[in-house]
Amino acid sequence: MKKNEEKLRVTYPSRSPQMLSLNNFKGTLIVFEGMDGAGKSTQINKLINYLSSKSFESYSVNFLRSTFTKDITSMAKWKNSNPITRVLIDSLGLYEEINNIFLESLKEKRVIILDRYIYTILSRYSVRGIDKNWLKSLLSLLPQPDIIFYIKTNIETCLERKKGSMLSYWECGCDIYGSDPSIRESYSFADYSNAFIKYQTSLDRVMKKILPHNVTYVLNGNLNENDLHNDITKQLRERGILE
Amino acid sequence: MKKNEEKLRVTYPSRSPQMLSLNNFKGTLIVFEGMDGAGKSTQINKLINYLSSKSFESYSVNFLRSTFTKDITSMAKWKNSNPITRVLIDSLGLYEEINNIFLESLKEKRVIILDRYIYTILSRYSVRGIDKNWLKSLLSLLPQPDIIFYIKTNIETCLERKKGSMLSYWECGCDIYGSDPSIRESYSFADYSNAFIKYQTSLDRVMKKILPHNVTYVLNGNLNENDLHNDITKQLRERGILE
Repeated sequence: MKKNEEKLRVTYPSRSPQMLSLNNFKGTLIVFEGMDGAGKSTQINKLINYLSSKSFESYSVNFLRSTFTKDITSMAKWKNSNPITRVLIDSLGLYEEINNIFLESLKEKRVIILDRYIYTILSRYSVRGIDKNWLKSLLSLLPQPDIIFYIKTNIETCLERKKGSMLSYWECGCDIYGSDPSIRESYSFADYSNAFIKYQTSLDRVMKKILPHNVTYVLNGNLNENDLHNDITKQLRERGILE
Repeated sequence: MKKNEEKLRVTYPSRSPQMLSLNNFKGTLIVFEGMDGAGKSTQINKLINYLSSKSFESYSVNFLRSTFTKDITSMAKWKNSNPITRVLIDSLGLYEEINNIFLESLKEKRVIILDRYIYTILSRYSVRGIDKNWLKSLLSLLPQPDIIFYIKTNIETCLERKKGSMLSYWECGCDIYGSDPSIRESYSFADYSNAFIKYQTSLDRVMKKILPHNVTYVLNGNLNENDLHNDITKQLRERGILE
């Protein structure tokens, strides 16, 4: 029996099975969407501080930075993998993060703030030629948010904000515009800027179409940080999302 | 400009973008399905040798062993992740392997032999409570095979063949039957055997329902290796799959 034990242990998991918990969540789901550089992170940090002052337990999730999919994401980027591989990785990160958070606690006063959600995946991959209905089905097991804050910003403003940290191949959609040698072969900021504007604008066009109107609130991203924050908390109160 | 170059290189991929190639394949797709221990690997090896003797270029793919998803699969097993996480990883491995193979070459005389395919994913995860239509949509971008060889074997025969290498937690579906403490807490071969029989039988029930009749050929897994192999090559000739 001793020998069997050793062999069986090889594939024995560290914990008991994790069940699906996607429908058990009783808290509040708040989504932020908007172009790269629209100011989502700033507003999410402000909101978390605000919620904490009102004794709400809040967490923010950015599925694109899931530790679970970190390595495979890097691998797919390095390999410049095809869109189906990449959308499956992004969705995996999203499902895994949502499931973990829902498992941890089912408290009523818990607020989950999502830095990008299914709408980002839908727009990123429908502009890459993947069928929208296939994408919708893939993401259909995820819960609907209570409210979506969509930060509407001029593309020029986003680009200006990005200048400090530089633009990446992916923010500029270079995998789509890769047939243009001026982008593939140059590393100049001007070429990347043009690609950034083209790509982010096309994402934004899809995003506006797919956001569910009844739960979407459009924020004016040209307002200053504090005014934006006040608009957000006002909406949450008015809609009875946070009592 | 020098400074920009360095920064931009950080996320610059190793190769140009990989397009979707799922519909470009002009070769032949042969699928093998059957219970663990049914003899799929043996028959696949025999078939590859046979095809090579007929100067067909053939490759076998087992998506469950994809190097692309190897690490994340181990992680999900170790964490005993929920079925949605796991089905997304399995599907990712399958799409990635198929895409790579289709990209590499589009030769007419190429034969791809799939050691398990979408039917394995459909049965494994529908018995874990995931909606069958969701699963079908997830896998719907994958190409239909030219023929499916389903090796039908007694569960007792499979169990007997497995005894040499021992049974794993996953082959026995212990994540499903984990509520039974006799399985969770014991490492005895008897308990695992019972779980193996129960789990493999339930998978097989689903499998038989979902296999598309027009392209499925049921093999008698109780025949000896050579008789089985002859039955396979006969079918391929009769159906005009290999001229």
